[in-house]
Amino acid sequence: MILTLYTLVRKICKVFILILLSYFNLGQQHYNIGAMEVTSINFEDVLPKVKKSIKEATFITFDCEFTGLNAISNINAFDTIDEYYNKVKKNCKDFLVIQFGLSAFRYDKLESAFKQSTYNFYIFRKPLDRNIPDQRFLCQSSSINFLISQGFDFNKLFKEGIPYLNLEEENQYQQNLVEKHKVISSRATKSTDKIAIPPNDKPFIDDIIKTIQQYLEGGSDEPIQLPKCNPFLRKLIYQTSEDMFTDLVRVETKQLDNKEKVLNVTRVKSSDELKSIEQQKLDEDNKIFQEYIGFTKVLRYIVDSGVLVVGHNLMLDLVHTIDKFLTPLSEDYNEFKECTHALFPQILDTKFMSSREEFKDIINSNVLGHLLDSVKKEPFEIPKCEIEKGCCGYSLEDKKEHEAAFDAFMTGISFLAMWNYLGKDKNLETDEIFSDFNLLKPYINRIHLMRLQDNQFIHFGGVDPKPSRDHVFHISFPKDWKVSDIQQLFSPFGNVFISWINDISAFVGLYKRDQANMAFSCLSNHTSCAVTKYSEYKDRNYVGSDRGLRRKSDESCFKDVKKRKVALENSIDELKIPKAALQKKKSGNTKTFVENEAWD
Amino acid sequence: MILTLYTLVRKICKVFILILLSYFNLGQQHYNIGAMEVTSINFEDVLPKVKKSIKEATFITFDCEFTGLNAISNINAFDTIDEYYNKVKKNCKDFLVIQFGLSAFRYDKLESAFKQSTYNFYIFRKPLDRNIPDQRFLCQSSSINFLISQGFDFNKLFKEGIPYLNLEEENQYQQNLVEKHKVISSRATKSTDKIAIPPNDKPFIDDIIKTIQQYLEGGSDEPIQLPKCNPFLRKLIYQTSEDMFTDLVRVETKQLDNKEKVLNVTRVKSSDELKSIEQQKLDEDNKIFQEYIGFTKVLRYIVDSGVLVVGHNLMLDLVHTIDKFLTPLSEDYNEFKECTHALFPQILDTKFMSSREEFKDIINSNVLGHLLDSVKKEPFEIPKCEIEKGCCGYSLEDKKEHEAAFDAFMTGISFLAMWNYLGKDKNLETDEIFSDFNLLKPYINRIHLMRLQDNQFIHFGGVDPKPSRDHVFHISFPKDWKVSDIQQLFSPFGNVFISWINDISAFVGLYKRDQANMAFSCLSNHTSCAVTKYSEYKDRNYVGSDRGLRRKSDESCFKDVKKRKVALENSIDELKIPKAALQKKKSGNTKTFVENEAWD
Repeated sequence: MILTLYTLVRKICKVFILILLSYFNLGQQHYNIGAMEVTSINFEDVLPKVKKSIKEATFITFDCEFTGLNAISNINAFDTIDEYYNKVKKNCKDFLVIQFGLSAFRYDKLESAFKQSTYNFYIFRKPLDRNIPDQRFLCQSSSINFLISQGFDFNKLFKEGIPYLNLEEENQYQQNLVEKHKVISSRATKSTDKIAIPPNDKPFIDDIIKTIQQYLEGGSDEPIQLPKCNPFLRKLIYQTSEDMFTDLVRVETKQLDNKEKVLNVTRVKSSDELKSIEQQKLDEDNKIFQEYIGFTKVLRYIVDSGVLVVGHNLMLDLVHTIDKFLTPLSEDYNEFKECTHALFPQILDTKFMSSREEFKDIINSNVLGHLLDSVKKEPFEIPKCEIEKGCCGYSLEDKKEHEAAFDAFMTGISFLAMWNYLGKDKNLETDEIFSDFNLLKPYINRIHLMRLQDNQFIHFGGVDPKPSRDHVFHISFPKDWKVSDIQQLFSPFGNVFISWINDISAFVGLYKRDQANMAFSCLSNHTSCAVTKYSEYKDRNYVGSDRGLRRKSDESCFKDVKKRKVALENSIDELKIPKAALQKKKSGNTKTFVENEAWD
Repeated sequence: MILTLYTLVRKICKVFILILLSYFNLGQQHYNIGAMEVTSINFEDVLPKVKKSIKEATFITFDCEFTGLNAISNINAFDTIDEYYNKVKKNCKDFLVIQFGLSAFRYDKLESAFKQSTYNFYIFRKPLDRNIPDQRFLCQSSSINFLISQGFDFNKLFKEGIPYLNLEEENQYQQNLVEKHKVISSRATKSTDKIAIPPNDKPFIDDIIKTIQQYLEGGSDEPIQLPKCNPFLRKLIYQTSEDMFTDLVRVETKQLDNKEKVLNVTRVKSSDELKSIEQQKLDEDNKIFQEYIGFTKVLRYIVDSGVLVVGHNLMLDLVHTIDKFLTPLSEDYNEFKECTHALFPQILDTKFMSSREEFKDIINSNVLGHLLDSVKKEPFEIPKCEIEKGCCGYSLEDKKEHEAAFDAFMTGISFLAMWNYLGKDKNLETDEIFSDFNLLKPYINRIHLMRLQDNQFIHFGGVDPKPSRDHVFHISFPKDWKVSDIQQLFSPFGNVFISWINDISAFVGLYKRDQANMAFSCLSNHTSCAVTKYSEYKDRNYVGSDRGLRRKSDESCFKDVKKRKVALENSIDELKIPKAALQKKKSGNTKTFVENEAWD
């Protein structure tokens, strides 16, 4: 009685304290006023809402956070687009996407305003079982440090990250399950692959056999736990018990609280019971498999919707997203272009858009944060944008930069302001501006390539620009040369842009392009360095080294992609890969300029 | 007045709540009943205590947690020790040590008991500036998943990890600082490496020049902030202002709250003021450098002490520790052996010890957790072991397995129990047992090599065992062969141990060793597979492929090690590298068996 009273008083005190706590803000509760945080815990619950947001969106924006960025530092300012793609692809294979921010913007005609729904997905897959490769991935100290300094929660990521499977991985997983099922249902095949018991381990295994025999002779149905032993011995026990006690006992691995593994042995009443248990396990396997597709489902909704996809400095985000969540990146650049255009028929890169003629002079810097600062001021005007009822999102006052979802949100707002600017410039009403995409036509399907000279970009569904590099030279020189030596060499022809390859060679671009011929005829026979025209250098390198290789790789890639296409088509119904995208892919399979139907 | 009263009441309430909180355990305070957690926050404060613990210890134990383990799965059961070392070394270059557990055990003769001091260090270095390479390191999903499931705090690691520098990195860092100082003190050299201003950026830079001129004409001493711009433009501004406003202004990069960088310009009153500011900066650089040596100091204390170092399954921990915190691993295996023995003249591996004849039959499994379970029971007796006064440590009831420090503690306790067992077996008194290391002689400097057949081990300061592999064959076979095919092939000669190399070759060991000759003469001319003697295969591979390469690499390694030796010697005084260890290294530089003096 006294104890109960004491407990009651304790409880009342606790409640009292918690009330005080919330008043004085001493507690740990954080009210999420930003994006909806999505982890494996709430993923399945949130998914229908995400699907709805995508389906109803006028456009969506997204942004990824990675474990690091290798390639960017390897890019040479005078790389060809093909070389650029290959470097980015390499980067993509090494690093992981760990956060995916998604912001869906819906234009509400009644209110003449945009409605925003913003989600922040934590992405990480645990190697739950052997179907998931135990991935080794790179991290870059500076990226990790940057993220942690911005408050990124790595514990949450590793504990509650959402898994994903691209098509290739999904096929592999499915195959594994089919094979596992075969092995279980016809145990005979398995026993041919038996391991011989090493003489040293024989006494231990003999003891185990005795233990199981005694258990079977006894009356108890309760499982017994075998002595702890190493994984090799556990394998031997499995094998021996299958040999000697088929259909009599079931051996199972159990994990103790301290993560150690032990074997439990349970008496089986009939072979039917055993089969039903095995079927149940297979069903569980299939359920886990479905859960494992995880975040990939979100990408499939996006692809399925055909919605306009907007990002800032989109290249890396795009290749990672395709490779990780949809289908492994093609070896061949042109196939990558085709595939991307089929999956995402309408994309827009605000980095590209903001650097074009119309905006260049009114946007000082188009680093995302600076871009947002610019569009908050004259001559820009951000259209009305509210958080969708029942959803989550940010306001412009939030300071969550470099949280993936906030970057997606900032991209969306910057895009809206630029779109609005284009419309107001043509004296259009708000409803007119946002009711079709005509104003955006010059920017659609063109993405900026960071660090390249000449404002290069990829034109999906069209022909990439090929700016002249007649003013560029490849030069080789002694190891002790510095910037000043190269500048000195070219000084008769004006200033130069130098892009180092290594410490004995570089590309050099003349600012005064008309001096190119003069420069070449003067310098081509220089004694202490070798000057070659850019085009000749690239031709020679192509012919000299990897033409054969490239052709071979082209062929095998083509086969790969064909295989992928078949896999995609076969899996359309179960896997919800949008047929539309695939059909577009086929019809768009031409080298001539093909704009999306929306522009016709 | 009312406001003050209100503030006072608030304060009193807060105190009241905090008291209640601590009573009801609702707060965030955790009372550390385990190891002392050491991060960059408390590292410098704890260091003297750590030093004392090491200095007074009878022996120390340690254990590391890594971001992953590549090599282990690449090990072939019939690798030579040399091959084994090379695989482990590769592993070591890819992954990081993220936690280092250290347990120091001091035998107190007065109390006839051990006193334990245990520390858990979080290890991670941020790429603070250009002196620290922006490391790319591998993580393995399963390792990360395992650690997080054991409660490892990655946020703490990345936020508060302690930095470290091995000798090579330290030298590089120091060199960089010297060069930076040179550049600052003689600015003339810098201007020869000027970048030409691209025509597009000229208007922006001209605006900046005007802004600075106006600031200099005005009266204010307050700094002004320049417009936000990208890193390239910031570089141009630095360069231009140095050219045009030498000794008039100081340009500095400032990081805003949102991590964006802007440039501040401050008027300089005299060139002396500028110099004194630069000197101050250099002093700060040096201070940061000293801090950056960080955790390496702990390893230097250990090396300096010459104390007995105990670990469980020591190989990986040892190579990582040497490579990361002391000196890059030697290319050559024999040099690695020499170097390790010089640094750690007395090491003991409880995995090796517990698998020897004396313990084999009384220890079922020597996985660390199982080993501890074994030594808690008869015939073992754990000697009295308490936490050192004023220090931290564990008790046997704690369940913190796979926290590095707890693993170190478990290793220590298991070691003590085995040591005690050896003494009791010889009817020695407790004081006699723990007063010298004679009983341990057969185990000292021998470390277990996981996954190798024939109980192979490395014998530091001695000759490695070379168990016969006359019963082992290399076989090549068609791709569709399975375990059963190989077993079938060898069935006339008894059971075999198969160690796969890939899907068309394997090593096969006969359990009945006396059948080796018979087997070879029967199978050497087999039609569907090629059977080679192990020794012949290894010889052929050695001659055929990498003898030339190896010789070359030997030579260059030798030079490296020589360089390292000089570096070590030069840095002894400032860097507290133990002279003793280096001297031992020289005298121990012989291929014959050299036991440590303690055993003579």
